[in-house]
Amino acid sequence: MESIKVYAPATVANVACGFDIFGLAVENPGDEVIVKKRNDDKIIITEITGDQGKLTFDPQKNTVTVPIIKYLEHLNKRTGFDVILHKKMPLGSGLGSSSASSVAGVYAVNQLLDQALPTRELLQFAMEGERIACGSAHADNVAPALMGGFVVIRSYSPLDFFNVPTPDDLYVTIVHPDIEVNTKDARYILKNEVSLKKAISQMGNVAGMIAGLISGDYSLISRSMVDLIIEPVRSILIPQFFEVKMAAVDSGALGCSISGAGPSIFAFSKGKETAEKVAVAMAREYQKVDIKTNVFVSPINKIGPKILD
Amino acid sequence: MESIKVYAPATVANVACGFDIFGLAVENPGDEVIVKKRNDDKIIITEITGDQGKLTFDPQKNTVTVPIIKYLEHLNKRTGFDVILHKKMPLGSGLGSSSASSVAGVYAVNQLLDQALPTRELLQFAMEGERIACGSAHADNVAPALMGGFVVIRSYSPLDFFNVPTPDDLYVTIVHPDIEVNTKDARYILKNEVSLKKAISQMGNVAGMIAGLISGDYSLISRSMVDLIIEPVRSILIPQFFEVKMAAVDSGALGCSISGAGPSIFAFSKGKETAEKVAVAMAREYQKVDIKTNVFVSPINKIGPKILD
Repeated sequence: MESIKVYAPATVANVACGFDIFGLAVENPGDEVIVKKRNDDKIIITEITGDQGKLTFDPQKNTVTVPIIKYLEHLNKRTGFDVILHKKMPLGSGLGSSSASSVAGVYAVNQLLDQALPTRELLQFAMEGERIACGSAHADNVAPALMGGFVVIRSYSPLDFFNVPTPDDLYVTIVHPDIEVNTKDARYILKNEVSLKKAISQMGNVAGMIAGLISGDYSLISRSMVDLIIEPVRSILIPQFFEVKMAAVDSGALGCSISGAGPSIFAFSKGKETAEKVAVAMAREYQKVDIKTNVFVSPINKIGPKILD
Repeated sequence: MESIKVYAPATVANVACGFDIFGLAVENPGDEVIVKKRNDDKIIITEITGDQGKLTFDPQKNTVTVPIIKYLEHLNKRTGFDVILHKKMPLGSGLGSSSASSVAGVYAVNQLLDQALPTRELLQFAMEGERIACGSAHADNVAPALMGGFVVIRSYSPLDFFNVPTPDDLYVTIVHPDIEVNTKDARYILKNEVSLKKAISQMGNVAGMIAGLISGDYSLISRSMVDLIIEPVRSILIPQFFEVKMAAVDSGALGCSISGAGPSIFAFSKGKETAEKVAVAMAREYQKVDIKTNVFVSPINKIGPKILD
């Protein structure tokens, strides 16, 4: 194989109570990356679409190529590649846009090199894309984009993560308001300390979320979708957050919180029909204040990256 | 039925990473309570054994009778009872001694009153025994003593708890060193704030423990038995803690931490044989420094209280 086209999905990190430890993949949106073998050892970004000119063509600085370079260094391979990146989701949206590109790129190259490494081991390289994008090598978007499904990052040092089964009828509604929140800012405003009391409550919700997902207990999932630590701080950066959240819950969502660092807002629902009703209600709140939105409704993506051609 | 004898089990609260939210019941030790209907409406403690004279006979102040009184008030019943309490475990040991008495008492009376309430609803009354014993109405010992198994307290307000299935081959080793740690002291030395970084790590372990227990993944259970918040502080109150912990792990335990507020130390092992080896190794560390111990090896108690006669 000389060339391959790979799709990697958007992801919702944190998932209400699991700051820095929970992430899940959705079926759409996602990024597409086309990788072609070269006759030399150069890594060249030949085309980027959908980024409104915002992304760099420097392969040492673009999240799509940094993981490829690290991967090739690790394997001590001198193969060169042309890389085309089609951004198919909003940048800086809290949907793991940089992770989707990182994962698609390194997954594509690994395919062209006859799966030199198992998928799981690509994570360390994809995380280097995150380091470029947001200053630290987080895994809560990269891991679900790579592995699919709902992922828990139990530990960063040493890196330890696992998948959690989710009920088939669990749907995700995502509303992305067309405003920009920088991930670095969103991290900067967080307090370094939390009260023991809040940490205990959050741990209870983390336990409830995992047990609820595994057992398919929608009520328990719903009761556990409470974030006492991050949401109260970050929601300040997101206009209409509480109106949108209330609209989601009033329309039957199990719960609603910030996707990653925001400004996207996600909701869980039981069943597609409810998730679509919730989408309409959430978007309406932004229409009222003339903020444009991208709206997505999707089941949990249980597969991760997909080979398109 | 005019009289009944009930056994309620000891419990391990916190279970390493789940401060105030995790608790589990063991098969032994446990307390026995005998309750007999009276012809008047008085609640009288007629006998207490095994407490070395430490417990009060005042029914308004003893953890065995306070829940009974609250329960009867709730039902507006004027039945009186004689109560005999056989303490069969060390007091102030971090094994939920007061909870076992509370649960046994109210469970017994509910049986004599033809199960006027479902077992689950007895929790609120049993928690009142905790309020008497340690100053606040915690549920992480009471809930597993009452419900059996491994219990998560997702929320205290409103009270929300659920059972988590555990693998059959999971054994608990408990070593109680014969020294006294007051639960109020053990709570007092905790810091009111934790770093966000530690809270995140702890949340990762909470998620890992729940997923590990449900899926029977002993390695994940083992990796998740890390307590960064409470153990480093409370272990100071427990002589030889680190030597005992190391002995447990070196003998094959999955992990080891403080039981409740201490001073008892518990370990998880896969299989009875390992759990017994671990018990010997842990106790040996206390023999070296001439501290007497009570040692218990038990599977998870999946039943809760038991009617003896």
